[in-house]
Amino acid sequence: MLIVMRKDASNEEIDAVIKKIESFGWQAKPIPGGERTAIGILRNTQPVDPAIFLGMPGVRDAISVSKPYKLVSREMHPEDTHIPFEGFEIGGEKLILMAGPCAVESESQAFSIAESVKEAGAKIFRAGAFKPRTSPYSFQGLGEKGLEILAKVREKFGLFIISEATDHDICDLVEQYVDIIQIGTRNMQNYRLLRRAGQAKKPVLLKRGMWATVDEFLMAAEYIMSEGNSQVILCERGIRTFTTHSRNTLDLNAVPYIKQESHLPIVIDPSHASGRRDQVIPLAKAGAAVGAHGLLIEVHNQPEKAMSDGPQSLLPEQFKELVKQLKEMGFKI
Amino acid sequence: MLIVMRKDASNEEIDAVIKKIESFGWQAKPIPGGERTAIGILRNTQPVDPAIFLGMPGVRDAISVSKPYKLVSREMHPEDTHIPFEGFEIGGEKLILMAGPCAVESESQAFSIAESVKEAGAKIFRAGAFKPRTSPYSFQGLGEKGLEILAKVREKFGLFIISEATDHDICDLVEQYVDIIQIGTRNMQNYRLLRRAGQAKKPVLLKRGMWATVDEFLMAAEYIMSEGNSQVILCERGIRTFTTHSRNTLDLNAVPYIKQESHLPIVIDPSHASGRRDQVIPLAKAGAAVGAHGLLIEVHNQPEKAMSDGPQSLLPEQFKELVKQLKEMGFKI
Amino acid sequence: MLIVMRKDASNEEIDAVIKKIESFGWQAKPIPGGERTAIGILRNTQPVDPAIFLGMPGVRDAISVSKPYKLVSREMHPEDTHIPFEGFEIGGEKLILMAGPCAVESESQAFSIAESVKEAGAKIFRAGAFKPRTSPYSFQGLGEKGLEILAKVREKFGLFIISEATDHDICDLVEQYVDIIQIGTRNMQNYRLLRRAGQAKKPVLLKRGMWATVDEFLMAAEYIMSEGNSQVILCERGIRTFTTHSRNTLDLNAVPYIKQESHLPIVIDPSHASGRRDQVIPLAKAGAAVGAHGLLIEVHNQPEKAMSDGPQSLLPEQFKELVKQLKEMGFKI
Amino acid sequence: MLIVMRKDASNEEIDAVIKKIESFGWQAKPIPGGERTAIGILRNTQPVDPAIFLGMPGVRDAISVSKPYKLVSREMHPEDTHIPFEGFEIGGEKLILMAGPCAVESESQAFSIAESVKEAGAKIFRAGAFKPRTSPYSFQGLGEKGLEILAKVREKFGLFIISEATDHDICDLVEQYVDIIQIGTRNMQNYRLLRRAGQAKKPVLLKRGMWATVDEFLMAAEYIMSEGNSQVILCERGIRTFTTHSRNTLDLNAVPYIKQESHLPIVIDPSHASGRRDQVIPLAKAGAAVGAHGLLIEVHNQPEKAMSDGPQSLLPEQFKELVKQLKEMGFKI
Repeated sequence: MLIVMRKDASNEEIDAVIKKIESFGWQAKPIPGGERTAIGILRNTQPVDPAIFLGMPGVRDAISVSKPYKLVSREMHPEDTHIPFEGFEIGGEKLILMAGPCAVESESQAFSIAESVKEAGAKIFRAGAFKPRTSPYSFQGLGEKGLEILAKVREKFGLFIISEATDHDICDLVEQYVDIIQIGTRNMQNYRLLRRAGQAKKPVLLKRGMWATVDEFLMAAEYIMSEGNSQVILCERGIRTFTTHSRNTLDLNAVPYIKQESHLPIVIDPSHASGRRDQVIPLAKAGAAVGAHGLLIEVHNQPEKAMSDGPQSLLPEQFKELVKQLKEMGFKI
Repeated sequence: MLIVMRKDASNEEIDAVIKKIESFGWQAKPIPGGERTAIGILRNTQPVDPAIFLGMPGVRDAISVSKPYKLVSREMHPEDTHIPFEGFEIGGEKLILMAGPCAVESESQAFSIAESVKEAGAKIFRAGAFKPRTSPYSFQGLGEKGLEILAKVREKFGLFIISEATDHDICDLVEQYVDIIQIGTRNMQNYRLLRRAGQAKKPVLLKRGMWATVDEFLMAAEYIMSEGNSQVILCERGIRTFTTHSRNTLDLNAVPYIKQESHLPIVIDPSHASGRRDQVIPLAKAGAAVGAHGLLIEVHNQPEKAMSDGPQSLLPEQFKELVKQLKEMGFKI
Repeated sequence: MLIVMRKDASNEEIDAVIKKIESFGWQAKPIPGGERTAIGILRNTQPVDPAIFLGMPGVRDAISVSKPYKLVSREMHPEDTHIPFEGFEIGGEKLILMAGPCAVESESQAFSIAESVKEAGAKIFRAGAFKPRTSPYSFQGLGEKGLEILAKVREKFGLFIISEATDHDICDLVEQYVDIIQIGTRNMQNYRLLRRAGQAKKPVLLKRGMWATVDEFLMAAEYIMSEGNSQVILCERGIRTFTTHSRNTLDLNAVPYIKQESHLPIVIDPSHASGRRDQVIPLAKAGAAVGAHGLLIEVHNQPEKAMSDGPQSLLPEQFKELVKQLKEMGFKI
Repeated sequence: MLIVMRKDASNEEIDAVIKKIESFGWQAKPIPGGERTAIGILRNTQPVDPAIFLGMPGVRDAISVSKPYKLVSREMHPEDTHIPFEGFEIGGEKLILMAGPCAVESESQAFSIAESVKEAGAKIFRAGAFKPRTSPYSFQGLGEKGLEILAKVREKFGLFIISEATDHDICDLVEQYVDIIQIGTRNMQNYRLLRRAGQAKKPVLLKRGMWATVDEFLMAAEYIMSEGNSQVILCERGIRTFTTHSRNTLDLNAVPYIKQESHLPIVIDPSHASGRRDQVIPLAKAGAAVGAHGLLIEVHNQPEKAMSDGPQSLLPEQFKELVKQLKEMGFKI
């Protein structure tokens, strides 16, 4: 933290800031300049709240120098985190494909889609049993019955399962059935759920809030890790911007930045980022090219009959075509 | 819903859309134009999901004509909703002031601030017992002990109490102690919590998500009302934009729009919208001038020692000065 | 400028940064911390480009401590700037009203509107003769003929005239006819035009770009002032955000911030900020309440026949009602 | 255009809207629904301004069904536009690389960089002679001297030249020297410049305004085409969002959307989109993968000494490495 004083700050005001810093047991380091004085704070063990200084007389600004996250930070843990599954890992060389419908609708629907995505090269089956929906009048998912169907998909097709936990006590249930617990974009700052996921024995895929800075995103992952679960997979799924040609704007600038700041693996969800089927394949390829460790893609065998998010689902043959193109570009699936 | 066909759509493609519409029991109304055909959907009882049509051949766009909300809508309920308390109401002529610290820190702190805001004209005391915090390492609130202090504030000063419920089972606890249950910006789409608040017997103040469109905000209120609780107070508290001179951007355009679209009362939180003490008084006055039914303002007797959000808290004498200025502008407090 | 080194930066890397700083004739001030070293830059006479350091090995961040603007800054010029006209000034106690149609369409239209806004209390007549339009097929304004009509409005009604210069050589023409040269939102970073306006002998009203941070806005004003024209009026007219209930989002947080950072007067344009007539009166009152020095408001006698921007224009009787309400709130018009 | 009436609109109000439509020579098509009436507008030859109807009694909304652009639209011109140069074309199968420094600084600098980018595979040399700069105190480019150096680069290295025209009369000068006239992000709605570029005999590369919707971007291209120049290259260079980890957010969702809506070629500028060297290579690969026709990349031999935008410039060896990786992914350079 660097406290920047006003040009006209008096010596008394500067002294008051120094005393305040020392009152917390930290060290104050005044840096007199040509125009104004700045005061560095040293020996703090945790990030300093700028609030403490911003209200003081003579203070112009309080600038954070350190990042607030620790456990998720690459400075703390320089090696990439790899999350192992039987036969593959997330965070390594291969591009891991997670595919499936937005929501489990029936056993036959799930089996049909699972068969085709497995054949195309997906390792993980994604489908929601509990669906967070903007309208209270929309289909909210099959609940536990959906999870049971997902368990059958794992058994029958050898696919690993990812599904969303929308609440901390739903997390108890979801953890029993799935291989990866998903936390959705709307819940990125549901701290109770984050803590519960941090106590889980399963990996957690955390979607970025569509409003969240990368720092806030990493702090949400820090919540999970601070409870002891180090198997966190980050997922960029688009942010809210002023544009209207897509549901959200996929923020691929975030990928190299996150890979530099954090050791955690990161995957891309081009389906929710666009909300339109015709953008999914180009964005999936872009996500692979920018360096993501995996892709999360909606696939539905009858998108026009899907009970949610149909217009962004690929058809099975489109997913197969995507995988073919990814392989031609040199990605190891 | 209006389905807009491509210029080169074939008759077969148009027929397929009509059949699809009729398969849901709705009526299709083709509107042939000079350049292209559009097809209106009639007799639907609920909003139609554009997803159903966007993937069909020959379809260019699917445009929603109706709004998705019902119970919150002024078209359904033309009169303003007034939420009555002993001696005043929210949603009527008077500007209701809700003031207090970000977090309850101690009985003496709460009593001291309560005394001064009561004297200045506040009707409702605001303070958090459960605090959602970006960092897992920050102060998370006093919990039930904080609620007990708030109950004493009510008894001693005759102020009504508003405090945040951060989770559905915390809502059980909060409802016992407070007069208004607050749902915070990060929880605007925590549907489990919204449903729980909809079952409460107390009014609910719902803060707009910093990323949420007004339609999404009203749909969140619809969740609460759909469970039977019609005492919902909306709160605009700033949205996330590209600017850097304030924590968020207070969206005052939303106030006349919401007052036109909905019958629910709306209040303004200038403290969180700015994050800076020097912007709170001007924005509070702007919020009153734009037509809000109330103001939610952070006041702290020692902001430099506050355990959270100090830099945006007014001092008691600043709050008193604000009330004076509001009265001079003609607002009835 | 503060250069923050990585935790693992070597002494050689730190030395290289110090040498680089000294190579520009500045002074380097290393600040060793517990975790990492930071290096302050002193004795620079102009803002330092972070670019110089961000690419160097071992450098984690380069943080600007000073603001890039000088002439517009309150630190350089602590007193408010007042821009005098015969009988009133912009930047003083009174709230100055500038009103009129989006575009001059005819003498009779201009005279009719001028008469009503003058009577209601406006001091300045606003109307465009050169219109920047999104579509090449839209009405582009009457050009010089429009300016001639505006000159007649001044003569007949004693109103001062503001009109937009869309280009540096159009500025030559506009300067001859008007009392205030307006620079529109799309031209906020048209540096050639800014420099030309800086050479004008008339005051300049500079609209904030809908994408611009306040720092960029103030830097655009700095361009004008750096050419010698100190009569600059800033105008907040809404920024682009994700919302859809208004054309733009009026950023009232910017007003107290600008009044603190700069000595220049600031006015509000609620008409363009909303794009909807029903939001203009509430936002105009909010703009006055937040502390603006004036309001720029579109008024049209027949908005449904207006050749541009009809839906955001007030009717003359609505403008009169607005002025009445502003006076009741205590504003001196 | 579809005019949506309020539920409680009277027959008189509906009739007034119909008469208004017919007064323009258009045809009104009422569509009575269960809840409300909508009225379609037919036989209009140009986009209808919603302003005409939004102010009328009983009108709730006016929804545009058609797009405002024509000449740039794929519906008008289904085949891709290819812009031919000697030996290659922009808009075809190959990925065209445009590389060079932000600004021409000297002959030796330009020659050194030109040699290395030519060798790596670039076909076009990019460098600014006239630089739009946020601060009036920053380096503004070498002007015509810079253009002369660029002409020598073409002669010596056989590279085509692209450079920015910052103003309509600077465009006269730039057109004489370059092969492609660049219009920068800040000038996307400088209509005088757009019209001038539309009269040029050279292709124009139009950068998207960092605040612009794709519709506005295409309308800016429409300005150029409406003056007769059909050789327009679109360039996505990042939009302004709330994020802080990059200078802008590269909007790759726009690429498939633009390729569907328009026949014009589109290229990506990853350098300005990120503002950070470490993001340029990943984003360049993503831009190629998403389907862009070319890349515009800053390369500098001594970025730490660059007079502008150093931190986002690749080193020559990094550019070479990027080209190698692009070829390995199967792109034809």
